[in-house]
Amino acid sequence: MPRRVGRRAFLASGAAVLGGAAALGGRELLDKGPQPSAPDATGRATVPFHGEHQAGVVTPGQAFASFVALDLADGVDREALVRLMRVWTDDIERLTRGAPGLTDTEPELAAVPARLTVTVGYGPGVLTAAGREDLRPAWLAPLPAFGIDRLQQAWSGGDLLLQICADDEITVAHAVRVLVKEARTFTRVRWVQRGFRNSPGTVAPGTTMRNLMGQVDGTSNPVPGTQDDRLIWVGPDGPGWLHGGTGMVVRRIAMNLDTWDELDRPAREQVIGRRLDNGAPLTGTHEHDEPDLAAMTDLHLPVIETFAHIRRARSDDPEHRFLRRSYNYDEPPAAGELSNSGLVFVSFQADIDAQFTPIQRRLDQLDLLNQWTTPIGSAVFAVPGGCRPGEYLGQRLLEP
Amino acid sequence: MPRRVGRRAFLASGAAVLGGAAALGGRELLDKGPQPSAPDATGRATVPFHGEHQAGVVTPGQAFASFVALDLADGVDREALVRLMRVWTDDIERLTRGAPGLTDTEPELAAVPARLTVTVGYGPGVLTAAGREDLRPAWLAPLPAFGIDRLQQAWSGGDLLLQICADDEITVAHAVRVLVKEARTFTRVRWVQRGFRNSPGTVAPGTTMRNLMGQVDGTSNPVPGTQDDRLIWVGPDGPGWLHGGTGMVVRRIAMNLDTWDELDRPAREQVIGRRLDNGAPLTGTHEHDEPDLAAMTDLHLPVIETFAHIRRARSDDPEHRFLRRSYNYDEPPAAGELSNSGLVFVSFQADIDAQFTPIQRRLDQLDLLNQWTTPIGSAVFAVPGGCRPGEYLGQRLLEP
Repeated sequence: MPRRVGRRAFLASGAAVLGGAAALGGRELLDKGPQPSAPDATGRATVPFHGEHQAGVVTPGQAFASFVALDLADGVDREALVRLMRVWTDDIERLTRGAPGLTDTEPELAAVPARLTVTVGYGPGVLTAAGREDLRPAWLAPLPAFGIDRLQQAWSGGDLLLQICADDEITVAHAVRVLVKEARTFTRVRWVQRGFRNSPGTVAPGTTMRNLMGQVDGTSNPVPGTQDDRLIWVGPDGPGWLHGGTGMVVRRIAMNLDTWDELDRPAREQVIGRRLDNGAPLTGTHEHDEPDLAAMTDLHLPVIETFAHIRRARSDDPEHRFLRRSYNYDEPPAAGELSNSGLVFVSFQADIDAQFTPIQRRLDQLDLLNQWTTPIGSAVFAVPGGCRPGEYLGQRLLEP
Repeated sequence: MPRRVGRRAFLASGAAVLGGAAALGGRELLDKGPQPSAPDATGRATVPFHGEHQAGVVTPGQAFASFVALDLADGVDREALVRLMRVWTDDIERLTRGAPGLTDTEPELAAVPARLTVTVGYGPGVLTAAGREDLRPAWLAPLPAFGIDRLQQAWSGGDLLLQICADDEITVAHAVRVLVKEARTFTRVRWVQRGFRNSPGTVAPGTTMRNLMGQVDGTSNPVPGTQDDRLIWVGPDGPGWLHGGTGMVVRRIAMNLDTWDELDRPAREQVIGRRLDNGAPLTGTHEHDEPDLAAMTDLHLPVIETFAHIRRARSDDPEHRFLRRSYNYDEPPAAGELSNSGLVFVSFQADIDAQFTPIQRRLDQLDLLNQWTTPIGSAVFAVPGGCRPGEYLGQRLLEP
């Protein structure tokens, strides 16, 4: 009874305040006086949105990421995609500089950009909906089936991807909400994967992240701003709409920590080919030492095992490389389990078929680590290049 | 074929390295040279473990929390509980100073304490298993049923609770894993709830957190170290084993952001009774201004609505207060939904029946906010006092 009275009283007395349009924009907020959640230095930091490339690819990894895959609703065509991409571009430009989205209903949550980046990717479905299948690069398709895969539809595929990264998890949650709401008439959420690394300020800048197996993960990466750029960005020989863009692989890799923990440390180091403490190859002393794959022990056995992960993950072909930008995940365990942990493996490369797939085949055939890791999700996206002020993301595909 | 060869070759060649005991401790690590993940200032910070009270109650809220409820296995008795609490106490003491647990299999992940605290709570089941039901405070029982509740077993109850908080999510994940593994023969995981606030360094120290509705959340809290301490800690009139301890309520509050976002800003401010931008009461200008519940408008209507949350959450009785220490949650949405967000509401109080329940009854009867929030989980724990070096957590209950 009292609750009903309350509701009725509110509806009566509140007629004046209810039912207006949505939210105020950021301007009105600024006029209203001091903000209690004024961002500190780490919170104020921003990553520029406009540029030749989208942010979030070579941007040093922020602490948190949400990967949101969306499927297009029936009837979404090129014109609808243009509308969606215009709205998203506008919102991303605002949010990444710490301003609320245009129709942001929680504008206070936008006040802490914390190096927010939003990276938009297109699955094959976008090109179909846009009537641009002729412009699809051959690699924009599901990866070939690998023997180690145990893929679940719940973590695979998708027409559109939002990779939303920041050094603050509230910032990520807010940006996800704004962008998913703006897309609600065009899309439905297919899956969301959330990941994390060390928090800002907890480890020295430039430290390679550790995964939840305890391994240093991502040591041997192409170096942006060098000639390695050709490995990351689609160049003039790729489709024109993707110039300055990249190919993106997102795979969910479950880790069996229970059986991994049964191995002793020397065995684990053999599995990886690196020391656990500082990530140095077993033939070296520092993390970034080049592994000596030919080195032999006194007993004429290879120092780095024939089936060690770092040996299998390396090809003689210097083009078989890609930029890894993975995040840890740790979800509540299923009934009877101790944990549910793994890696949201993310790689960027100009040509997935030419760079990623050959390495993945090598790992599929032989890699000791496969005994403790299982790919349970897989998706491939084309990440268009960046845009200048006045342009929108994907414009060169949708309005060439 | 190649994979089978790989496995066989490994098992043959690896006989020498496999099958040893578990992991090395921290000492051997230190002898091995430089660590690539040397913690920075925020990572090195620690919260003392030993003391009159457990840490994690009046400790300023860290950025991340995992709440792990465990059920005791059949046959766990007082002696088994003593063993478990000895092991946990030892591990918690180590982990919170940045050292690996005694049998830690990923010791590198322990190197960043980042203000780690682990707070242990007992559900009624612990007292039953220990044969100490006579020492159970009356409030250590499920809360009365409230009309607004839509409780799910998946988020309710539990014999034991671990509240694990740190400013780094990898630290939290590692500590959860170590402590759940150590307890595996005694317990099974009942539920895990994870939550977050702003990252370290992103907002000014002392800033009240915002929830995902955009509200400043937790403004009006008892102040530790003042006479408010009597509201937080069990004193001499409580059970002796709980002296220096506290009562803990954990409730999962789902937020319906979709309908909330349909309200305009003035309506939301009426629902709460506070301004959204800086959290000031509608009768004041600063967040910590005392609300004037008697203030009327020119039209003789209350400035703070009769059914506003801050009015309903306040009692005339100054004993009806408790320390809130909540965290946001944001999980992947169910099919067809846009988001799955809410609050892991956490409160600490010396006497749950005397302090928490009267307020919750008021809110149950009348609170506009109930239209957008739904309690979907509820659990109650007794948090024993802290321990001195050589003691273990809960000793005064288990070996009085």
